[in-house]
Amino acid sequence: MAPLKSWLSIPSDSHFSLSNIPFGIITSKYSQTEKRPAVAIGDHVLDLQAFATGDGFSGLPSLKPHLSVFSQPTLNAFAALGQPVHREVRKYLQDLFSDTTSHPQILKDNTALQKSALLPKHETKTHLPMQIGDYTDFYAGVNHAFNAGSLFRGPANALQPNYYHIPIGYHGRASTVVVSGTTIRRPNGQLLLDPTADPKVPTFGPSRRLDIELELGCLLCKANPMGEPVPIKEAEQSIFGFVLMNDWSARDIQAWEYVPLGPFNGKNFGTTISAWVVLFDALEPYRADKLPNETKLLPYLVEPRNDTVFDIQLEVDLTTPDGSTTTISKGTGKNLVWSFPQMIAHHSVGGCAMQPGDLLGSGTISTKDDSGLGSLLEMSAGGKKEIMLAGMDVRKFLKDGDTITIRGVCGGEPGALVGFGECVGTIESAIPFP
Amino acid sequence: MAPLKSWLSIPSDSHFSLSNIPFGIITSKYSQTEKRPAVAIGDHVLDLQAFATGDGFSGLPSLKPHLSVFSQPTLNAFAALGQPVHREVRKYLQDLFSDTTSHPQILKDNTALQKSALLPKHETKTHLPMQIGDYTDFYAGVNHAFNAGSLFRGPANALQPNYYHIPIGYHGRASTVVVSGTTIRRPNGQLLLDPTADPKVPTFGPSRRLDIELELGCLLCKANPMGEPVPIKEAEQSIFGFVLMNDWSARDIQAWEYVPLGPFNGKNFGTTISAWVVLFDALEPYRADKLPNETKLLPYLVEPRNDTVFDIQLEVDLTTPDGSTTTISKGTGKNLVWSFPQMIAHHSVGGCAMQPGDLLGSGTISTKDDSGLGSLLEMSAGGKKEIMLAGMDVRKFLKDGDTITIRGVCGGEPGALVGFGECVGTIESAIPFP
Repeated sequence: MAPLKSWLSIPSDSHFSLSNIPFGIITSKYSQTEKRPAVAIGDHVLDLQAFATGDGFSGLPSLKPHLSVFSQPTLNAFAALGQPVHREVRKYLQDLFSDTTSHPQILKDNTALQKSALLPKHETKTHLPMQIGDYTDFYAGVNHAFNAGSLFRGPANALQPNYYHIPIGYHGRASTVVVSGTTIRRPNGQLLLDPTADPKVPTFGPSRRLDIELELGCLLCKANPMGEPVPIKEAEQSIFGFVLMNDWSARDIQAWEYVPLGPFNGKNFGTTISAWVVLFDALEPYRADKLPNETKLLPYLVEPRNDTVFDIQLEVDLTTPDGSTTTISKGTGKNLVWSFPQMIAHHSVGGCAMQPGDLLGSGTISTKDDSGLGSLLEMSAGGKKEIMLAGMDVRKFLKDGDTITIRGVCGGEPGALVGFGECVGTIESAIPFP
Repeated sequence: MAPLKSWLSIPSDSHFSLSNIPFGIITSKYSQTEKRPAVAIGDHVLDLQAFATGDGFSGLPSLKPHLSVFSQPTLNAFAALGQPVHREVRKYLQDLFSDTTSHPQILKDNTALQKSALLPKHETKTHLPMQIGDYTDFYAGVNHAFNAGSLFRGPANALQPNYYHIPIGYHGRASTVVVSGTTIRRPNGQLLLDPTADPKVPTFGPSRRLDIELELGCLLCKANPMGEPVPIKEAEQSIFGFVLMNDWSARDIQAWEYVPLGPFNGKNFGTTISAWVVLFDALEPYRADKLPNETKLLPYLVEPRNDTVFDIQLEVDLTTPDGSTTTISKGTGKNLVWSFPQMIAHHSVGGCAMQPGDLLGSGTISTKDDSGLGSLLEMSAGGKKEIMLAGMDVRKFLKDGDTITIRGVCGGEPGALVGFGECVGTIESAIPFP
């Protein structure tokens, strides 16, 4: 389909084409410091609070009773209005920005409203888009699960017997989910330097195996009461939208702590998500089939269709402190064996209450071959080989000052990209501990 | 010490003596339906919103700038004022209710304020006392950890090599933490009925091994920013107070799902806490030594003193649908090998941000012998033997309609008890699944 054309100048390589319209939370860098909702469009953002105040939604009268959602510091209230409203608002904004808008007087020809609500992106700052209620991380990237399992237990026992029956997941830490750009401090913790020693005695210090996890995050918009599961056929309606996610992981802390109750301090020091929430509708044209699962699923996990993941081109850059950047991974969002609707159906099947603002992580997304691995653990074969970087540099795990940048984009047609922008974090050195 | 005497009639066996003054959230059953803070005292509650409105805090001028915390639907804002303020308010209220109050005109002789703020407990309803940010469940009850580990791996390998080095914990589900009295629906889920089959194939249905976990919950009052650990010496100051907790567990769902990332649907369908938060200060006289740990701890876990758990007498009653009640466990809160300050120091040592309203669970508290086990799993030796109940009834795990009541109380002197009241939940049958 031909790109939608806008009267606003939108760079053709922008992730935020008229086909996208992702939602986020901004402040202005210089004046208005209160957090408020916005959409990203090309090199601009539309401040939805100013836009609503300036009668920008006059062409969408059904939204009138709900305009206060755009005076909130998070997107939770807007998300809670549900997918039909997100759909209407996105379509309305696409129309307003299009060359052939049916309401030119509202924005296209209204320089006063443009002045108050349409801000250059570089004059704004983005914030965590939602107040995260609970954060759950799944393990749906089967290639990663196989690679990680092989390192620990050998290829024959890499995947547990439950893997193809259950979208395996664990509860994560919501308080340390942060927006792209937030510095991540290397964690201190207990490290078992000699795993073969008997007895095993840990030492204390900064993690030496600090890693990334390339994931897709899914933010929910719908609540189900405790005790009332979300049926698989309705689970898609619980999705507000998607973000890129880096689930930073301290492999050495994790290895010593995780038996028998799972990862804890190896993960809870920080999880970065991208700032702009790409709506479910915007990704709809990029549906793709899940990876094959030969196992006969229990009915509560059987989806009406198989194309329930998305063809998102994913890239990971590592920038060293001297500023040289290497793309260390090129993968795709298709590499999942479980979809988010399946994760939602499973998460709630025993009665767990889900809420708008809950964050679900896909688990690390890796290609089957070495081109698009989602963690340094896999790229370095468990820390056994060097990852080659530009400028003769090498890494096994992250050094202080390293920056990780994840990018994700759908489609290839200039002017019609649907992307996530970037999910960025820089590693700060561990605090000295008394 | 002699019991503090009150001008208000307080039953001598009340958990809510003048020595206690626990905080909660109430609504009135008949009129005022908005949630508001209160304290429990004997068979009454003091409605703190009405009390503040009626100038009840006029004798505590330092609190004046903060009185709006008593017009909140949770205790989070009050908790965030910090331990010194909780201490002042508790002492002030103890004085106002005492026979020899220094401010008789404020409440003792003020029938108008008594009428508006001092409500019969049975005319009020309690609610979740705090908005839980994140919920973390630890595993500090070493007797339970040993018993459960023995059932799965034999006594020789019952405790993992990390157990005495790390306060093991995992992230739980905050959205399903509910107040005492909330019905708990039996979860459906994946069950591996024949664990010896090859390949392993799960079936779907209601949990057949629905269990309890007797725990103590700790609610936090202090935030630490991400990246800045809470030092062990300051960790006690992060504690707002304590509640009883029942971490309902579906053992069969848990057994099939928990490798490799820990418990998930086996736990997230519901966690019950008691309604009244017993302040840190109220438990201070009941400090007790932790269970011995011969392991040399890393410095960040070394406490300045060893008496950092509490001598709380714990009881668990099981009431069958026909109404007959059996006390199935009599234990003590002393049976922990890690204290809450140690859990806080460990939880935050890598930089995890903690917040007022975070809930930490102790893990299941069991006696070393069979008198005070904290789970049916232990009482039934993994479902192998019947637990004898009154009226010739028996159980291995919970049946629909069963009610579990946990009680906890410190001290034995009539009129001076410091107790938690009850933590109650009744099992409702699983929903039929299509």
